[in-house]
Formats: sequence, C-alpha cells, structure tokens
Amino acid sequence: MQMIHRERFLQLMTAQAAFGATAAGGVSRPALSPDDHAVRGWFRQQIEREGLEYRIDAVGNQTARLACGFADAKTLLIGSHFDSVPNGGRFDGALGMLAAFEAALSIRDAGIQLPFDLEVINFTDEEGTHLGLCGSTTLTGGMTTERLAIPRDGRAALEAGFAQLGLDLNRVLEAQRDPATLAGYIEVHIEQGTRLEKANLDIGVVTSIVGIRSFWLTLLGEAAHAGTMPMDQRKDAFFGVLEYAQRARELIMRDFHPGTLNFGRVELAPGAFNIVPARATIGVEFRHGDPALFDAMESALRALAQEVATGRGLGIEIQKVDNVLPALMHEQMIEHVEAAADTLGLRYTRLMSFAGHDAQSMARVCPAVMYFVPSVDGISHNPREFTSDDDCVNAANVMLQAVLQFAQNYQ
Amino acid sequence: MQMIHRERFLQLMTAQAAFGATAAGGVSRPALSPDDHAVRGWFRQQIEREGLEYRIDAVGNQTARLACGFADAKTLLIGSHFDSVPNGGRFDGALGMLAAFEAALSIRDAGIQLPFDLEVINFTDEEGTHLGLCGSTTLTGGMTTERLAIPRDGRAALEAGFAQLGLDLNRVLEAQRDPATLAGYIEVHIEQGTRLEKANLDIGVVTSIVGIRSFWLTLLGEAAHAGTMPMDQRKDAFFGVLEYAQRARELIMRDFHPGTLNFGRVELAPGAFNIVPARATIGVEFRHGDPALFDAMESALRALAQEVATGRGLGIEIQKVDNVLPALMHEQMIEHVEAAADTLGLRYTRLMSFAGHDAQSMARVCPAVMYFVPSVDGISHNPREFTSDDDCVNAANVMLQAVLQFAQNYQ
Repeated sequence: MQMIHRERFLQLMTAQAAFGATAAGGVSRPALSPDDHAVRGWFRQQIEREGLEYRIDAVGNQTARLACGFADAKTLLIGSHFDSVPNGGRFDGALGMLAAFEAALSIRDAGIQLPFDLEVINFTDEEGTHLGLCGSTTLTGGMTTERLAIPRDGRAALEAGFAQLGLDLNRVLEAQRDPATLAGYIEVHIEQGTRLEKANLDIGVVTSIVGIRSFWLTLLGEAAHAGTMPMDQRKDAFFGVLEYAQRARELIMRDFHPGTLNFGRVELAPGAFNIVPARATIGVEFRHGDPALFDAMESALRALAQEVATGRGLGIEIQKVDNVLPALMHEQMIEHVEAAADTLGLRYTRLMSFAGHDAQSMARVCPAVMYFVPSVDGISHNPREFTSDDDCVNAANVMLQAVLQFAQNYQ
Repeated sequence: MQMIHRERFLQLMTAQAAFGATAAGGVSRPALSPDDHAVRGWFRQQIEREGLEYRIDAVGNQTARLACGFADAKTLLIGSHFDSVPNGGRFDGALGMLAAFEAALSIRDAGIQLPFDLEVINFTDEEGTHLGLCGSTTLTGGMTTERLAIPRDGRAALEAGFAQLGLDLNRVLEAQRDPATLAGYIEVHIEQGTRLEKANLDIGVVTSIVGIRSFWLTLLGEAAHAGTMPMDQRKDAFFGVLEYAQRARELIMRDFHPGTLNFGRVELAPGAFNIVPARATIGVEFRHGDPALFDAMESALRALAQEVATGRGLGIEIQKVDNVLPALMHEQMIEHVEAAADTLGLRYTRLMSFAGHDAQSMARVCPAVMYFVPSVDGISHNPREFTSDDDCVNAANVMLQAVLQFAQNYQ
C-alpha cells in the first residue's frame, strides 16, 4: 500500500512552525502579516524545489499543482491555510496544508496517474484577521465588493497586505473559479475538541460544518435608584437577561443536542453601581449542523426572548449580527474518507464540525469533505495546541488514500 | 401656632427652578457649574435682601445666619444643597434648602429668640459631580487631601470651580468646624421612593441613612471555542456570575429586608461572540441602615460568592470599591420631628433612607435628623421628579416646628 514519506512530512511540519514562532511554542501568523508573508514565501520555495507548478490567484490563494495532462481535466483541491490567529498553535491550518502537500508529493513520487489535476491550496485569511474564510469565499463566488470594503482591520491594511503579494484589492473577485472546473475538495484539520480523544478514535469524518448565527438581544426595563427603589418593584433589565440566558441554555442542551449556544458579551446601561439597569444587552451565538434544527433553534431562542420579556414587562430589541448557513459534506466524499481510514486500519466516526472551515465555502460549489485528527485536551487557538506525530502522519496518509479512493471512483 | 409664609416660600421654590432650568421642567446644576454658581448668587441675594448674615466657608458651603446674640452660643444647622445631578429635578436638595430658609425667615419675622445660632446651609457638591457630600464631609472633618486630589472630573475642574468662588483648593480643609460648636442638624428632602405615597403618609422620619458598600466580583473560568467546546464541559465564568446574581438577590430579599442589592455593571472577557467567557466581572452594591445587618450582608454576599465559585470550579477575585457606613439619626432629634408633625396634624412614620444625604456626615459629629415628604411615583434624579405644593409646605412647616421643639428642649 502506498504510504506518505513520514520523515519528509514531519520535517516540513517542524520547518513551518519556525515562521511566526512564539516563545510559548505556538505561531502567530495573522493573515498578510510579515510572518504570514514569510511562511508563504517558504511554501512557494518548497513547491518549486519539488518541481510542482506554483500559482497564486487574485485573492492570494497559493497552489501547488500536479497536472494530469488531460485536456479539460477538472481539479481536485486539497489543502487548508497557513495563517493563524494571533498567538495561536502550530497545527491549526498548517497540518492540513502539509498533509495535503505531502500526499501530492507521494503521488508524484509514485508516478500515479490521476484522472484530474490535483492542487494543494493555501487559502488566504481563513482565520478572519481581515475577512473570515476570505480566500475560499472568493474562489467559490461568495465574496462581494461590499464585504471587501469593510475588513476588520480597515481597508488600508488589507490593501497593503495584498500589494505585498503583487495583488490589487480591486481585482480580488477575479479569483472566482468556474464550479464546472472543480472535481471536489478534501481538507484535514485538528479537531479543536475532545470527542476523538475521549472515544479513543483516530479520525472524525465531518458530516456537516455547523451554521453559526448571532444576534444582540436587548431587554428594556427602567433605570432606578439602587437604594430607594425597593427590590421587588424594579424593572431590572439585567435579571431579564439572566433568566433568558439560563433558560436558553437548558433549552438548547435539552432539545437541540449537539447544537451549541454561547453568551460572549453582556452590556448594562446606564452602567453605574448605583443605578438599576434600564438596558441589558447580551450577545447570543448558536450553532448547529442540521439546517432544519438550526432554523428551529433560532425560532425557539427568539420565542423564549419574547416570553421572558413579556413575563417581566420588559421591552425587547433584537439585532442580527452574523448568519453562516450549515454546510453539508458530500456523502460519497465522506465514504471515500471512511474507505481510506479502513484501508489504514484506523478507527473513525462521523461528527459535525462546530468550527468554521474553508470546506464550508467549497461545499457550496463542489463535492467536499473534511476530517479531523485528535487535539490533545481539545486545546486550540492557543500555543498549547498539540497533536501527536502519529496523528499528524495519519492525517497525511488518510489524505493520500482519500485522493486515491476519489481517483478510483472518478467518472 | 406659628406657620411659615406659604406664598413667599412657594415663590422661592419657583424662583430657584429658573437656574439651570431644562426644557423638560427639571434643573441641571452640577456642582460648581455656571448654573450652580448662578443659583448660589441668587441665594446670596435672598439672604442679604432679608437681612440675614451671609457667610461662605473654605469649601464653598454658603450659610444664612440668624444669630441669637448669646456669647459662646452653639449653632443649629438646617439645610441641604442647591446642586443637582445633570438633568435632574427641581425638588432634590432645593426643597430642603428653601424649607430651611423659610423656617429661618419665619422665626426672624416672629421675633422668636432662639437659645442658639441658626444657620441655613447650602452644602457644596452633595451629588458628587466632583466629590460626593463634599461640603458636609469637609465641615465635619471627614475630608482628606488624598480624596481632594482625585475628584471625579479631575483636579483642574474642581480647582477652577473653587476659584470662581474666590476659594483655594489647598485651603479647603479649613472649613472643618469644631463639633463642640454644633448644636445639631435637621434636613428635609423628598423621599425619592414610594413608601409615603403608598401608605398615604405626609412625613417619613429617618432613623438611619443606609451604609453603601460595593465591590467588583470576578469569577474566573476558562476561555474556550464557542463551537467546539461542548456545553456541558465548559468553565463558563458568565454562568457563575449569573447563578451568583440570582441567589444573592433571593438571599438579600429573604434575610435582609429592607436592605437592597444592585448589579449595575457586568463585563465579560475576552468579550467575543464566539468565545466562552474566561472572566466575568459584576459590580455588586448593597445597602442597609442597621450597622450589624450591614456587616452580616457583606459576610453573606462574600460567602455566597465563594460557594458559587467552589461549586463550579471557578477562581474568584473580589476588589473593594466603596464603603460608606450606616449613619444613625439621633433619637431625641427624631422625636422632635415627630412632635412637630403631631403639632401640625400630619401623618408620619419612621423609615430608613436608602439614598445618601449630607445628614449622614453631620450625624458623625452632632445630633442629626432628617425627614422626607412624598415624591410622586418615587421619581428622582429626573425632570419628572414632583412633590406637591402642600407637601412642600409641610416640609417647611415641620422644619419650623422642629426647630422650635429643639429650642424648647435645649439645655
């Protein structure tokens, strides 16, 4: 059985971690930062040294291309991202990049003739330093000039970052590819959770990437003097939000498992120790991988907010923030990954991804799948993020076998 | 029976409301602002026009003095404050000032010989634009150079405000009076609550002014990815604070009535929609008029915080913010006010003041008392603050009779 080149691959993993290396053992490579430019330069060198074809598109996605030579061949994309959150870990994104690159090298080394072009892709700004999933969203036609106009760090920073790649912010949308040219997409990533570790499994095959919706919920009571207004006569907006948060948590855990709910921000106004809060605003974020349950979650969360407000005589305001739809992975692609794991004797399960990934953009336009390898203690976006060498090697071997499975079943 | 001059008094009430008048019908006279200086100038004119002796001390407290002529006579202070919160009402402070001034004028008009000097006092910055209870704290020896160095709006603003009164910030402490010269203190104020209104009473005689303590309580959990970290495995600091707030409210209402508790501020960190909060900080403020119960409240609130933190495996930090001790009113002074109300056929009760007042400073150094008249709907620090003419007149008549009761029993 064809296997990847373990030493070459682990050396690449070590080498990439030098770019933006932090004292704590992680990497800090926000998209288009000097350290991201450095790791991009290094990746280009590796591609060219190995004799693969290097390309960069209008949004800065880098690819290593292994052409099959057939006219009108479609392209199978495999990859992830080299950018990181500030002060992140050395596996998030980079493992997916190098497992894909190593799989491509192994195929090239073995002289295997694929029925499609294979491209290893480094997507721009997966983590959202400027615009989350920027590269994959643009490649799949989901980017807009409106979104490009309001990146998180301002347009000037994004423009400067692209300029350093020789790219023009005004031409970014040209990176869109015709879906008819795409055969599929496969990505491997660390789990960023503990389900595989706890179940003692090697591989988690993702069935869907959760949708993520968020809104600001504001309950409106009446400001009052914290001394002179008796406690049983207050219209305290904070206690409304408190009842809401507690009941919402119980509701989601009871009726929408394994969907998740988080309250990451709370603001009270006027915001003084001695004034009963007139306004309490809470940031509500919820996730689910099943489109129908995702919508039902939103309905239930909105109905509960109304019920709490009515019960306490409070006003209510809801302001939408974000809305990312669940992305279903492709059943045949899932089966290719499972077959790959079987071939390698690895233990696997199906699960949802509760974090966003470039695979969700790809799933909108072509058969896509992603899979996870274990993260120790589920630690992620943290220098202590860790995945063992054996699990990294499994990631790369499954990628190689999955590409071969895809090729064998390709029509 | 001696009564105050109703028309003169109500005309003064109307006249004072022109200074800092707001479109909504209230007044905005933050201490030492141009409008506060204007009302101070007007008050001085009224004092001098009526032939009383005008004085101003080193902290800007203005007094109208009616001397008794006896050598070594002590002074009975009566009064309140003309400053207001920004966009406040026209009764808070001003009613107490003019009820006292009118009582003094009525005594002067009637040629009553008092056995002490009577001074109507306008305390500087009761509301705390710069330093809460500034004038009364300084007069009673509680002010420090340390506090004077860090006023809320900065030292330059306070210095400029004093300079406009011809005063030197460096000499403010000279306003302290020898307690041996003080016979007592009487103040009337609007209730800023609804207890009198609901019980259909005219006068509330204050038995104590509540102590106010506040602290920041921080619970420490662990930041986590809002998608990948299962809900039942999180160390979510927000839900710790939420349990604390609910249990603390129940505890205070059940065991410490009529003490109050408020949560006016909440902050979560890191503070992102998609991150489970690692830190949740809540501003806790509690009040009680009984010194022993006040201390017991603090012990109970701290013990509960520890219990919640331990139960959830969270860390805990407590940072003290403010500590104002309860101030007990003087029993004989209380009885003088009750006798005054009886004389006038008014219905009264004893109650605690849940707001701070200059009387709490005075109670530290001499026999002090304050009493309330009804506030419609308890609205306060608001242009809609309202007390009827009849209740205002009651305020002034009770002041007159209370001074006379004090004089009759003076030794």
